[in-house]
Amino acid sequence: MDIAAANQTAVEKMMSARPILKGLAPARDVVPGMRPNLLLHAGPPIEWARMSGPLRGAVIGALIYEGLAPDEPAAVAMVERGEVDFAPCHEHATVGPMAGVTSASMLVYIVENITHGNRAYSNLNEGYGKVLRYGAFSADVLNRLRWMNTVMGPVLAEAITSSPDGLDVRALLSEALHMGDEGHNRNKAGSLLFLKWLAPLVARASGDSAVAAEVLKFLGDNALSVLNPVMAGCKAMADAAHNVEGSTVVSVMARNGTDFGLRVSGLGDRWFAAPCETPQGLWFPGFTAADANPDIGDSTITETAGIGGFAMAAAPAIVTFVGSTPKHAVNATLEMYEITVAEHKHFTIPALDFRGTPVGIDIRKVVETGITPRVNTGIAHKQAGVGQIGAGLVRPPMAIFEEALVAFAGQYGL
Amino acid sequence: MDIAAANQTAVEKMMSARPILKGLAPARDVVPGMRPNLLLHAGPPIEWARMSGPLRGAVIGALIYEGLAPDEPAAVAMVERGEVDFAPCHEHATVGPMAGVTSASMLVYIVENITHGNRAYSNLNEGYGKVLRYGAFSADVLNRLRWMNTVMGPVLAEAITSSPDGLDVRALLSEALHMGDEGHNRNKAGSLLFLKWLAPLVARASGDSAVAAEVLKFLGDNALSVLNPVMAGCKAMADAAHNVEGSTVVSVMARNGTDFGLRVSGLGDRWFAAPCETPQGLWFPGFTAADANPDIGDSTITETAGIGGFAMAAAPAIVTFVGSTPKHAVNATLEMYEITVAEHKHFTIPALDFRGTPVGIDIRKVVETGITPRVNTGIAHKQAGVGQIGAGLVRPPMAIFEEALVAFAGQYGL
Repeated sequence: MDIAAANQTAVEKMMSARPILKGLAPARDVVPGMRPNLLLHAGPPIEWARMSGPLRGAVIGALIYEGLAPDEPAAVAMVERGEVDFAPCHEHATVGPMAGVTSASMLVYIVENITHGNRAYSNLNEGYGKVLRYGAFSADVLNRLRWMNTVMGPVLAEAITSSPDGLDVRALLSEALHMGDEGHNRNKAGSLLFLKWLAPLVARASGDSAVAAEVLKFLGDNALSVLNPVMAGCKAMADAAHNVEGSTVVSVMARNGTDFGLRVSGLGDRWFAAPCETPQGLWFPGFTAADANPDIGDSTITETAGIGGFAMAAAPAIVTFVGSTPKHAVNATLEMYEITVAEHKHFTIPALDFRGTPVGIDIRKVVETGITPRVNTGIAHKQAGVGQIGAGLVRPPMAIFEEALVAFAGQYGL
Repeated sequence: MDIAAANQTAVEKMMSARPILKGLAPARDVVPGMRPNLLLHAGPPIEWARMSGPLRGAVIGALIYEGLAPDEPAAVAMVERGEVDFAPCHEHATVGPMAGVTSASMLVYIVENITHGNRAYSNLNEGYGKVLRYGAFSADVLNRLRWMNTVMGPVLAEAITSSPDGLDVRALLSEALHMGDEGHNRNKAGSLLFLKWLAPLVARASGDSAVAAEVLKFLGDNALSVLNPVMAGCKAMADAAHNVEGSTVVSVMARNGTDFGLRVSGLGDRWFAAPCETPQGLWFPGFTAADANPDIGDSTITETAGIGGFAMAAAPAIVTFVGSTPKHAVNATLEMYEITVAEHKHFTIPALDFRGTPVGIDIRKVVETGITPRVNTGIAHKQAGVGQIGAGLVRPPMAIFEEALVAFAGQYGL
């Protein structure tokens, strides 16, 4: 059995995938299997009893937002009565940053990999601080979500679909990596490229110049506005590399705030999960490491696709946000070449003489070298209702790579 | 006499200057000394007989644009009859990229250094290729100028003045240098930050959503849209450092396509000029080094203020545009520390551990070390009417630094 050849096939599919942003629609209309009492969440499967504070907070917020519960006690009671179903975003072709909670009426970006035909989805980005995806669910959080979904959303939907070609997410990322982004925790340039594409479309789509101005201000002020389409783009790329017989390439890394889960291309839809680490980083004023929730979010799909922590050498300025030094940022990328199977054809790093980013994590190399993937991430408060408290760096637990390798040996009789 | 102290005073003024974009108005209404038969141009003073092709082309285009001449022969005849006055932009608090030709009815950005109160001006940017500033003057070039000045201009003017605080050009540059720009030849990030600021203001200012969309598309598609406000910002900063008694710091570097001129803080308004070099670089398809005009433009005000070629280490991706390597880009910045008197307080380079850019060129150090400043630049075709043919790197002639140093010794009796 030629594992190397299988991995090459997988990573070639990942790199040749070309995700195009084509639309924005309510999750219930486009996400496979979506239904009113189903909440999608980040990471591997988890039941309510084991959910961390920020994921619980986002669940409560989503139930209130959907009008299924009037307040927190009612939402919790509803969950405890078993009236709410939970499933990983990843099991519904979807990815969500941090808690990743996506409910039926929330709008999701529609991203299509036009090379292989698969689609992926992700919700709208709310910005920094006190937001649903970090587990906050106060009235202002829910009002912002309503404005995003009912005022901004229809304008954005019309703007996106008015573009004949859609937005080439891979091309946007290629350019953003030459502008100091790494595509996960630093999406300043990418968000501005997104705004550049959207601005004339929004101006034309909106009949009301005050609404157009408000939408453009909201998008422009949010240096993470493109994160969700980027994540859907990475999901579309990683899904293209999934289910390659005999491949040890990782096709999903995701965290639910309690467990870090991964999937491997040649091992089907089985999750390998173990408790997450807690990120180290820089804290927003008034918070410390003691407030931090363990690692959470589907945004590790960026590292899975060869950007994020893997492209940190492209983004030396990120160290002011996550803690660290520019030298360390370069070393982070260099280290990742040790555990990957290719250098990306489309994502290159100017400061490394335009070397392609390390892409295609090989679970064999992770176990052999003892080097786990590097991840850039936001940090949530461990209690429901608070929100973002910092940003930093983290790695997945080694145990899930070892477990996956044992399973691989078993499945393929090695 | 304490030259070092004088230089410290000059460079401190340059760094503490805070240029704010406050408006956009016809040159005749705001540029000091502007009048209908006066054309401002880049670089040191020059008469028609010695003007290079691209500067002549821009002069012809401006006379047709102003309605002063119906066509090229009439424009040339008018100049030859002595009916047109010429003066350097720099002598009217103005800067213009490439030919820099600015006429009375053209709109100029108004930038005010709110620390010291001086103002500087620069015209609208036309984008790449066949444009007036590179000496092209065909009907499409002039039609674009008309649209910019009569359709886009009024919307931009209202958008800019509707902002209570204006745009902080220094803050924009600080951020752009962390996003892979060097601020002269690469202004991708800066132009997007400019668009981010303008987009909601334009949407609100324009009564017509189709016009708003057209303006936002034009600005977004031009990765140099912010160059002119940036140049006016650098002019406002450099002017703040001018006329410091006993200072050998360069306060102006500018080229007219024939001569490279400089001014020194402690030597008043005297120009030191000598023939320009021709840039080396990369050529647009169909052109070669044989087509290139010698160095042209006021955009060297960026290097004068500590960005551009001096900040090339911040912009490794620029090498794909100007020719060179990322390593060379770092070395270019490192070399400039040899001839400058300070490290910038506000402009820092992440890849150099956030070291301040080299700022305040000391003519003594240039002559002592034999190192002339590094300049990134666009390259114009040597014939009138063609336009941009490439981009590259160049240096000023050593002779002007030597001549200035001799004059300094003479003036101060050293």
